[in-house]
Amino acid sequence: MEKLTHFDSRGQAIMVDVSEKQDTSRVAVATGYIYVNEAVYKAIEEGTAAKGDVLGVARIAGIMAAKKTSDVIPLCHPLPLAKCNIDFELLSEEKAVKAKATVKVTGKTGVEMEALHAVTVSLLTIYDMCKALDKRMEIRDVHLDSKSGGKSGDFVR
Amino acid sequence: MEKLTHFDSRGQAIMVDVSEKQDTSRVAVATGYIYVNEAVYKAIEEGTAAKGDVLGVARIAGIMAAKKTSDVIPLCHPLPLAKCNIDFELLSEEKAVKAKATVKVTGKTGVEMEALHAVTVSLLTIYDMCKALDKRMEIRDVHLDSKSGGKSGDFVR
Amino acid sequence: MEKLTHFDSRGQAIMVDVSEKQDTSRVAVATGYIYVNEAVYKAIEEGTAAKGDVLGVARIAGIMAAKKTSDVIPLCHPLPLAKCNIDFELLSEEKAVKAKATVKVTGKTGVEMEALHAVTVSLLTIYDMCKALDKRMEIRDVHLDSKSGGKSGDFVR
Amino acid sequence: MEKLTHFDSRGQAIMVDVSEKQDTSRVAVATGYIYVNEAVYKAIEEGTAAKGDVLGVARIAGIMAAKKTSDVIPLCHPLPLAKCNIDFELLSEEKAVKAKATVKVTGKTGVEMEALHAVTVSLLTIYDMCKALDKRMEIRDVHLDSKSGGKSGDFVR
Amino acid sequence: MEKLTHFDSRGQAIMVDVSEKQDTSRVAVATGYIYVNEAVYKAIEEGTAAKGDVLGVARIAGIMAAKKTSDVIPLCHPLPLAKCNIDFELLSEEKAVKAKATVKVTGKTGVEMEALHAVTVSLLTIYDMCKALDKRMEIRDVHLDSKSGGKSGDFVR
Amino acid sequence: MEKLTHFDSRGQAIMVDVSEKQDTSRVAVATGYIYVNEAVYKAIEEGTAAKGDVLGVARIAGIMAAKKTSDVIPLCHPLPLAKCNIDFELLSEEKAVKAKATVKVTGKTGVEMEALHAVTVSLLTIYDMCKALDKRMEIRDVHLDSKSGGKSGDFVR
Repeated sequence: MEKLTHFDSRGQAIMVDVSEKQDTSRVAVATGYIYVNEAVYKAIEEGTAAKGDVLGVARIAGIMAAKKTSDVIPLCHPLPLAKCNIDFELLSEEKAVKAKATVKVTGKTGVEMEALHAVTVSLLTIYDMCKALDKRMEIRDVHLDSKSGGKSGDFVR
Repeated sequence: MEKLTHFDSRGQAIMVDVSEKQDTSRVAVATGYIYVNEAVYKAIEEGTAAKGDVLGVARIAGIMAAKKTSDVIPLCHPLPLAKCNIDFELLSEEKAVKAKATVKVTGKTGVEMEALHAVTVSLLTIYDMCKALDKRMEIRDVHLDSKSGGKSGDFVR
Repeated sequence: MEKLTHFDSRGQAIMVDVSEKQDTSRVAVATGYIYVNEAVYKAIEEGTAAKGDVLGVARIAGIMAAKKTSDVIPLCHPLPLAKCNIDFELLSEEKAVKAKATVKVTGKTGVEMEALHAVTVSLLTIYDMCKALDKRMEIRDVHLDSKSGGKSGDFVR
Repeated sequence: MEKLTHFDSRGQAIMVDVSEKQDTSRVAVATGYIYVNEAVYKAIEEGTAAKGDVLGVARIAGIMAAKKTSDVIPLCHPLPLAKCNIDFELLSEEKAVKAKATVKVTGKTGVEMEALHAVTVSLLTIYDMCKALDKRMEIRDVHLDSKSGGKSGDFVR
Repeated sequence: MEKLTHFDSRGQAIMVDVSEKQDTSRVAVATGYIYVNEAVYKAIEEGTAAKGDVLGVARIAGIMAAKKTSDVIPLCHPLPLAKCNIDFELLSEEKAVKAKATVKVTGKTGVEMEALHAVTVSLLTIYDMCKALDKRMEIRDVHLDSKSGGKSGDFVR
Repeated sequence: MEKLTHFDSRGQAIMVDVSEKQDTSRVAVATGYIYVNEAVYKAIEEGTAAKGDVLGVARIAGIMAAKKTSDVIPLCHPLPLAKCNIDFELLSEEKAVKAKATVKVTGKTGVEMEALHAVTVSLLTIYDMCKALDKRMEIRDVHLDSKSGGKSGDFVR
């Protein structure tokens, strides 16, 4: 019978004991989208080429957020991240920006939450910078793409 | 011609000058969803009734995140929040949890980002606590529902 | 019938709405003690006079902690503190150090938690700096001494 | 002759050099109490059973505080915690709540401060959530119960 | 006879009481320089035009640092900043980058420290990003250019 | 041809992948100066001997800043510091204070930024505490003195 690992047998929240786990090399990749209106899409597209670089700011915000994940997610273990990068893709048909974060660590637990946190914060930063032009932007389909390393085995969505 | 307010005329990122704005009472409401599998849905539903209270932890994470928004979103102004609450709704048909954050402030700028940040962090916390049961959970349709107060007028989606 | 203000009618934790409250001048004073062994007591006493200034470090830690209170206490409102100071008293008979924190703000809610947090962190810092000499130190009798300002009236213990 | 390890030979505060120490598995357990009035005691007791879960919020606050210890205690080393849990016990005769924190790490230095910090922050959170009902609550007898791992040997109070 | 305001009459560090001060509009401007070698200078210059935008990252770091000043400088008051921007100037003769930060607030105390902190962190970020090319870079001549608002009067260097 | 390591081939900022690097023992030493007027110099000099200990506060600020470096410098890796100390020297002829920070870690990347950050924050803290006496203080000549450990070899300025 399956159960939630973040609670003990009495249903109390715990930071799971990972002290017996091995330090292994782990990678996680997460993706998400923000859907925007025409004006925002154009502003982002132009900014990338020249000035007003929305995605450059959003990338820095996402990388810094990856490092703060255990500060924000209550039961998440602190980890000395070894790598983080964030790629954006402009989807002209959907008028959307795709954000993909890749995080690596050598540690006792995985970095799924770090990758997901980096994605959501970079998308929220795009929202913040463009909200004067569009209040109806929407963040969609944030999910884990893949993870590798660790006892529970690799995962590809 | 519309433009991005978070850049100056040379395209350089700035924290916008709000010093001339009035201190007014402002409210923002944001919503988002996490779609989960059967096992997670049941675990959350039971936890709410008895023990293993996933949503109780996610609510605290979201409220604390609202207070940290300007720490995480680069060009967001720090604000002394006057209120924050987060409501969850279990959607049994879609196997999803809806999170709604309401944030209030008396200040020179609005709290849209605080409400959106609270929503995403509470959804990410649900993800973290349930990821042993489901790696395919997805965060969807995070958006601003409404805002009021401030010069730019009220907004209802 | 009395009730806990940090929960709504359904028992869900909330950051209480203070937006309708007045900005008034508020002060809170809190006290606590750490009981130590002979060796620690002497080290602290000498450090104050000459070098190895345990209380100087503990004072800075307490002041910085006052500023971080809303970051650490989940439902506590962020406040722009106007003053914080911490006084220590050496109690030679009891072999103890008394810490007293005074915090001031002009705001919509009181600073009791800031004063209590400053006291406990300054006592924990004394513990940290002296733990090589005594593992049995104990923090005792941390309480609010007084508060003034705000609608609920003044309090003196 | 004993001396304080957090100062160098000139009496200047330092973060002690632990680079030559071994990475060993270390555990620390700390305890503390908060004494409350009848109304608070009843509110906490009922909340645990049904809604208004004071101890659930306090537990999350304590776990998050454990992770922030080196941010708050000036000379404390940052450590990648491997586990943290907090147990509460209701003491009906004394009208008190006992908090016990257990922290684990694989590292070069111990986690006593993390356990003590988790205990005090969880007790302060109880104070914050119940202060509308009782301003005379008192935090008492916060101490280290035991530690193991590391060169200085095990300790049981 | 002049004295340091951050100590009380017994020489103990305090966060100065500003509760009696008026909320006025205050501005501070600070400047600093980083001197670099030929290779770094060229890399920064090219990055500004095309890709590898060192100054864009440094600007974000500086703005975020302005907001964190009271977290880092022990006796500095927390303030709800109303504006922050950072300008860079490339000095081709000296092979240096000049950073200038302008910070505004409506509050009870000035923002000199915020402007100085923003400048140093943006210069340190340039150092970090370019240190593979030059380990001899030097940060020089960080000072306050001007301040206005507040009882102590305006200052221009 | 040399290039900036903090950007990928498309010129996008990244947190460099250090996962393949060895955990080695690394040390970095950095230095900087603050030039002050006569009144400040005297106040610091007297404080060191007796009360109003400016340098004691600045030292704690610098050590705490070393631990926060990766929080502040966007692309800097988080590291579990093993040691940090800060030495001050009073230069009576120049009317200046020299700050020297030494930081150690066992990790996959160096601690230059931690040493430089500790130096600048301790100098800024001196500025903050003395700014009532002198608004023309200047921070000068902040640089790396030496580093050792790691693949790129040792460096002595």
